[in-house]
Amino acid sequence: MKIDPATDLELVRHLKASPAKVWRCWTEPRLLEQWFAPKPVVTRDVEIDLRPGGSFKTVMDVPGHGEMPGHGCFLEVVPERRLVWTDLLQGCWRPNSESFGFTAFILLEPEGSGTLYRAVALHRTPTQRDEHEKMGFHDGWGTAADQLDALAQGL
Amino acid sequence: MKIDPATDLELVRHLKASPAKVWRCWTEPRLLEQWFAPKPVVTRDVEIDLRPGGSFKTVMDVPGHGEMPGHGCFLEVVPERRLVWTDLLQGCWRPNSESFGFTAFILLEPEGSGTLYRAVALHRTPTQRDEHEKMGFHDGWGTAADQLDALAQGL
Repeated sequence: MKIDPATDLELVRHLKASPAKVWRCWTEPRLLEQWFAPKPVVTRDVEIDLRPGGSFKTVMDVPGHGEMPGHGCFLEVVPERRLVWTDLLQGCWRPNSESFGFTAFILLEPEGSGTLYRAVALHRTPTQRDEHEKMGFHDGWGTAADQLDALAQGL
Repeated sequence: MKIDPATDLELVRHLKASPAKVWRCWTEPRLLEQWFAPKPVVTRDVEIDLRPGGSFKTVMDVPGHGEMPGHGCFLEVVPERRLVWTDLLQGCWRPNSESFGFTAFILLEPEGSGTLYRAVALHRTPTQRDEHEKMGFHDGWGTAADQLDALAQGL
């Protein structure tokens, strides 16, 4: 896919786990809850309706901030290769009343016995991209990717 | 589909033209340009990439307001039955920097020799729905539907 550095953020990692195991960790709610947010943030009540137009719900308990619900919509689902969703929509394509406003691409490719893992976030504007970077995109998504790989390797 | 009267607007019409002809008028740029906006508004430079994630571009010349470009993204494409798009995204799922913020469903069903035509707009909030209604949703989409039916019957 085509990255626009002005509005997009990208994390690229080699993971030791296979694309099949990484995919399971992204798409099975009980697995996703174990790695999705950097600890000590707790992710719970995950709901995944894994189809284009399907709902993607999470709740995060953030120490000092309380409960942060998340509601998105899957746009593309290509097993073990490509998962795309946005928080601009919720399930059945309904516009979200509030959203940060991004589309996320999770792209998996076999690399040796592991996975070339790319997580790309597309934003509405350069300002919003910079805000997401300052919120800790690279550290946050990077730490979560470490947690994901550790979990996936043990499956 | 499930309508929420607080946030959604719906136009229901019987059209004399068949679903196949109505579909052509919605998906062929040179046809869409002829009916999409109530006259004297002129629609031009229409681009339609008819697939989920494909771009939907229009430019309207509105007397007294000038040029109004529109950029959306198709979400579902079921020929002669169901066309869904949103202006929250543009082609390839990229968030739009500016948007009114709605998802549109165009639903076609055979009804006699014609079409049961439903156009549904989903909004982010009740306030935004009411704003769209005051902008003239029913008159505007209704007049466009008349223009669509006249064009489709002549195909």
